[in-house]
Amino acid sequence: MTKPITYGMIGGGQGAFIGAVHRMAASLDHQARLVAGALSSTPEKSLASGRDLGLPDDRNYPTWQAMLEGEQARPDRIDFVSIVTPNHAHFEPANAFAAAGFHVVLDKPMVLNSGQAATLAATVAKSGVVFAVTYNYTGYPLVKKAADLVRSGTLGVVRKVFVEYHQGWLATPLEATGQKQAGWRTDPKRAGAGAVGDIGSHAENLVATITGLEIESLCADAATFVPGRTIDDDAAVLLRFKGGAKGVLTCSQVCVGEENNLSIRVYGSEGALAWRQENPNELWHTPRDQPRRLITRAGADAGPQAAAATRLPSGHPEGFIEAFANVYRGVIGAIRAKREGRTPDGLATQFPTVHDGARGVRFIERVLESSARGGVWIPA
Amino acid sequence: MTKPITYGMIGGGQGAFIGAVHRMAASLDHQARLVAGALSSTPEKSLASGRDLGLPDDRNYPTWQAMLEGEQARPDRIDFVSIVTPNHAHFEPANAFAAAGFHVVLDKPMVLNSGQAATLAATVAKSGVVFAVTYNYTGYPLVKKAADLVRSGTLGVVRKVFVEYHQGWLATPLEATGQKQAGWRTDPKRAGAGAVGDIGSHAENLVATITGLEIESLCADAATFVPGRTIDDDAAVLLRFKGGAKGVLTCSQVCVGEENNLSIRVYGSEGALAWRQENPNELWHTPRDQPRRLITRAGADAGPQAAAATRLPSGHPEGFIEAFANVYRGVIGAIRAKREGRTPDGLATQFPTVHDGARGVRFIERVLESSARGGVWIPA
Amino acid sequence: MTKPITYGMIGGGQGAFIGAVHRMAASLDHQARLVAGALSSTPEKSLASGRDLGLPDDRNYPTWQAMLEGEQARPDRIDFVSIVTPNHAHFEPANAFAAAGFHVVLDKPMVLNSGQAATLAATVAKSGVVFAVTYNYTGYPLVKKAADLVRSGTLGVVRKVFVEYHQGWLATPLEATGQKQAGWRTDPKRAGAGAVGDIGSHAENLVATITGLEIESLCADAATFVPGRTIDDDAAVLLRFKGGAKGVLTCSQVCVGEENNLSIRVYGSEGALAWRQENPNELWHTPRDQPRRLITRAGADAGPQAAAATRLPSGHPEGFIEAFANVYRGVIGAIRAKREGRTPDGLATQFPTVHDGARGVRFIERVLESSARGGVWIPA
Amino acid sequence: MTKPITYGMIGGGQGAFIGAVHRMAASLDHQARLVAGALSSTPEKSLASGRDLGLPDDRNYPTWQAMLEGEQARPDRIDFVSIVTPNHAHFEPANAFAAAGFHVVLDKPMVLNSGQAATLAATVAKSGVVFAVTYNYTGYPLVKKAADLVRSGTLGVVRKVFVEYHQGWLATPLEATGQKQAGWRTDPKRAGAGAVGDIGSHAENLVATITGLEIESLCADAATFVPGRTIDDDAAVLLRFKGGAKGVLTCSQVCVGEENNLSIRVYGSEGALAWRQENPNELWHTPRDQPRRLITRAGADAGPQAAAATRLPSGHPEGFIEAFANVYRGVIGAIRAKREGRTPDGLATQFPTVHDGARGVRFIERVLESSARGGVWIPA
Repeated sequence: MTKPITYGMIGGGQGAFIGAVHRMAASLDHQARLVAGALSSTPEKSLASGRDLGLPDDRNYPTWQAMLEGEQARPDRIDFVSIVTPNHAHFEPANAFAAAGFHVVLDKPMVLNSGQAATLAATVAKSGVVFAVTYNYTGYPLVKKAADLVRSGTLGVVRKVFVEYHQGWLATPLEATGQKQAGWRTDPKRAGAGAVGDIGSHAENLVATITGLEIESLCADAATFVPGRTIDDDAAVLLRFKGGAKGVLTCSQVCVGEENNLSIRVYGSEGALAWRQENPNELWHTPRDQPRRLITRAGADAGPQAAAATRLPSGHPEGFIEAFANVYRGVIGAIRAKREGRTPDGLATQFPTVHDGARGVRFIERVLESSARGGVWIPA
Repeated sequence: MTKPITYGMIGGGQGAFIGAVHRMAASLDHQARLVAGALSSTPEKSLASGRDLGLPDDRNYPTWQAMLEGEQARPDRIDFVSIVTPNHAHFEPANAFAAAGFHVVLDKPMVLNSGQAATLAATVAKSGVVFAVTYNYTGYPLVKKAADLVRSGTLGVVRKVFVEYHQGWLATPLEATGQKQAGWRTDPKRAGAGAVGDIGSHAENLVATITGLEIESLCADAATFVPGRTIDDDAAVLLRFKGGAKGVLTCSQVCVGEENNLSIRVYGSEGALAWRQENPNELWHTPRDQPRRLITRAGADAGPQAAAATRLPSGHPEGFIEAFANVYRGVIGAIRAKREGRTPDGLATQFPTVHDGARGVRFIERVLESSARGGVWIPA
Repeated sequence: MTKPITYGMIGGGQGAFIGAVHRMAASLDHQARLVAGALSSTPEKSLASGRDLGLPDDRNYPTWQAMLEGEQARPDRIDFVSIVTPNHAHFEPANAFAAAGFHVVLDKPMVLNSGQAATLAATVAKSGVVFAVTYNYTGYPLVKKAADLVRSGTLGVVRKVFVEYHQGWLATPLEATGQKQAGWRTDPKRAGAGAVGDIGSHAENLVATITGLEIESLCADAATFVPGRTIDDDAAVLLRFKGGAKGVLTCSQVCVGEENNLSIRVYGSEGALAWRQENPNELWHTPRDQPRRLITRAGADAGPQAAAATRLPSGHPEGFIEAFANVYRGVIGAIRAKREGRTPDGLATQFPTVHDGARGVRFIERVLESSARGGVWIPA
Repeated sequence: MTKPITYGMIGGGQGAFIGAVHRMAASLDHQARLVAGALSSTPEKSLASGRDLGLPDDRNYPTWQAMLEGEQARPDRIDFVSIVTPNHAHFEPANAFAAAGFHVVLDKPMVLNSGQAATLAATVAKSGVVFAVTYNYTGYPLVKKAADLVRSGTLGVVRKVFVEYHQGWLATPLEATGQKQAGWRTDPKRAGAGAVGDIGSHAENLVATITGLEIESLCADAATFVPGRTIDDDAAVLLRFKGGAKGVLTCSQVCVGEENNLSIRVYGSEGALAWRQENPNELWHTPRDQPRRLITRAGADAGPQAAAATRLPSGHPEGFIEAFANVYRGVIGAIRAKREGRTPDGLATQFPTVHDGARGVRFIERVLESSARGGVWIPA
């Protein structure tokens, strides 16, 4: 076995949710080891969180700045940093670590605006580091199969795309109860955008990942349904893609009873596909004038792309953590390839990059602008 | 048993599809008998079709005008006429028969434009006849239950409505093959509108039937995906309802693999519902903060509205014909009530009227206008 | 249109359930007309029921014996009789009408014991009448497709069959409340057998219809779960078929929450199928080493057998009444063929006959015998 | 964070499947570290496999006997051993390590016969070690909820249980192709039993885990459908439980198209439940006379037992690895509790023990005996 890659984490300390997921995902294949951290927004909470996770004292940092300084000074410095802070605290550490030559894994949405995104992209280009944005749903094996169905031409010319990400957890003013997740995610200062930023951007990314289509223009109607809230909790967006396809993207956090109902349907001239995140081990493919076919992860016709992202035989469900781990698998593969002067293999390159992140940030901006102007068509 | 109601049919002859469904539906409860007809667009085909159906020679008419004249002259004239012609041939016979005091059942969309709709509504108001437009999906028992969930306040304040009607049968230029249905439905002169008129109007009606919400404004993007076609075969519409709810309505005839996938989801502050026409014996109801509940037709908690529209115990599926028959059951009940000077009971009044028809025609017009203007918001 | 066939009904009067279904089914295609009846178990109720249905006084009979005598004396005697009484009242009228040359439609289970079945089969053979037993589930279009998948060899050699019919309506002592259906169906004198007779026999018939396999031996464990009940309300049966296939048949009326959950799964060496009555417009077919295929009624690859039993395009659900009507369609076709000296076409012969009925009766007997002897294997 | 537990693995080397799953599961919570191994059946393959996994040379053992000796001699000896060899190689290492005071995790079925099981149970009782059998499906959160629904009396008196585990991967003579898994699993010497041992025992365990019912007697019909195979690849078993409930257990490896279709349905006097391994994040619960309720993992009403076994919010699917990890979480909790002289908390004790393992072995024996005697009822 090759020596595991080492990493440090920014954010993800006590009370956080997604940090623990990142840690399970990063080490699922026993290929990465957490060795450093600046895990929370105050020095005290950071250090306490690091002790909880068993970090050695000399790499349990009070702030990300301290971690940057400390790790730069070490001969065994971390290979990459994983940044899982709220959105407003993405740009500075990401940019600083990338500039210093550390590979970076960064949560989505990448940054707060396109200006930051451009700066960050330039930094990454200059430093040449591996840089991933954790649009984690792209890690599902059958998302890779779906992309292959489109890219291989099996669906013919894509005409129509429906994508939605519906949740119900913010159907009441949960943020008023002190719930931490609801707090920052509905705070314009820390989140930037609400439903559009948190889940609409996942939907946009899923469309891009699967279809490769570019949005030419869009028309959006965002809303805030829960009284007292100061950020969008719902949006519907009409899409026109370059080349003539059209789409509908909806996201909502006020759909009572919905959990993480991210789904996509793609209709082409020769076939259709449908996939739903909550039951990710199944993919529908309907060739024109033939019965629907239910493709299962690792089952018949799931294909090599899905197989490369799969750990279990068919019928033993894989889930969210495994999909997330595939993003890390890609990152780790790219880091190893870079270290060894190799071109990463196909799988390793299959993770969302700084360009996906930048496109996502721009999408959020354009949706909110269209909506703010009353729901007009604007270029994407 | 009360004496069956008698009726005549206009359209629905050889080669038609929906006429046979109307006849099965009208007589399912043994309460209506077909005794007259002008069944096709030419005298020869009309008479041949009438012979196929065993109509007596003296009531097998070559044209609807002949039928109108003939029936008016008889002491045992038909109680109602059922008009199942292509859209462009709706207005004249409907208006003439209504003016002559015959009750009328008319297929949707009711007429070609709002001018015709206003004239027809005035005729109906003046003559006082029973007038139904066969938005047949309203006849499903669980659509009635869904309406009750909203109207009773069980869902709280409605926030969001998603409705879609997706088909795939026109994903290729089927009209170029001589297929009769495809021929008139894609012909602007005979159909008036394409996907929006044929199925988008069903979707609009379903929203109105279940939620009672009024559309305040809309923004539409219609499309023609199949080369050579001269009518819309796809549309997406953003909706804003009076009172603040929002919605998304999509309809398409190019969604490969879809059959008659009409579905609706309604999200309110206190709960949600979901229903799908292709599996009409199930209705999902999710009270906020509780597990989803699967209500079955005639099962626990299906309620009295559904029960009144049900012929079988739960677990024995009812389908499209039975739903269609519920529209006729309502019409027949209303005719009997009128004859006997009664107010029709609750069930009998539950069928789409000339006002639903007029609203549907206006919806089609406004969608196409918004789209023609590039996809702008306009009042509904 | 050919002149409709006429029929009389025995049973199915006030308070009955299945009689109304037979009447809707018989006339759905406008090919049969109810003109006579002896509709209940007492003369008073019979006559009152006949008046409800609008029967002419001279053909509204107080008893089936009177109907037999009356109709025999008429030049326009009924073509067939439909017998929908409780099980103990099947044999005598069926045998008498068949002997008198009337065609017969009889509810299942056909009769109470194999002795009656043999007598009846002999009568039918001698008189040459058309005789159908309403195992109505065989009328579903996709059951016909399923049978074709097996018979055509598409599934290869059948190895394993799972069939079940689970209901929950008798999970409590409903018969103690005076409910009419529960009353006779749990009364050994009127029903003969309980779950095994009412629904187990449907399951047996479905296996035979789809697979054509003959049961060689069986081992059964019947039970009565509800205290105070004196008839079986549950059974599990292991099956060994001639040729080596095996099967499991279960039926129960105490499965809380189940409605009419009749389902079958057939596994062969080259493929598998699965079908469920409560969602009858879908059939799963899995070729070995390929993804599952979802065949829909009237959809791609549904095939000619299903098409011949279908009234609507795909996506517009058909249900129980339509399936039931297919049995009548077959009977009417056979009667017309006989009248015209023709061999009935393929479709017309596709209804359960006196031989299916006799085999079903024997199955019930053998299941109860095996169970009574403690659950031993006995020849079928 | 407490210091991670250390473990060694026996089996699970190159070419194995389940070993990698054990390793991912054991370390998912960062609470266990693999530090030693005897990973294959020959010294060469063992050592090569250990190098693949990065084991230190001094703990990379050629045989389990060497590992036992080596670890006993170390001050930092492993806390537990995880044994993932084929069935015939379970007893000896398990018994030896348990006798030497090592905690043990052992794959199922535990051993080859009841004699071995009794010896092993005695060893465990004497040594007092923590001993788990990886009936991993018990680790699913909603299996724990299902057990709670029964144990809490929510379902009333259990009447009927249907459990099945159907696969299709052995529908052809895969073992003849050299496939490693198929090879040992169809070899009577190495596997002991076929479908009954491999998957039937999972089904038995699931029934026991959820219902707590004890099988009183059973009647089995096992089969070998694939020509040339010398072990059962299919079985159906009728069950009678103490107290009057009945059940049907089926398992098959020749059900074409099935992957790991393990499902259970439990019907009680007051309600019912249904769960399916391939979609493990959903559990149906039907209270009598109420609509079905769809309980989701971590969703409304999932309850504290499921919550304690859950790592993600609802709507983000967990799968097989996470369930497997819950068994390890229980084991590790029990080891820590023992080390600290505590009683393990509720969750920690929720894993299958040597007694579950012994009961499972006896079940396999009795099923095969009943079947060998022609399918007779015998005490369980």
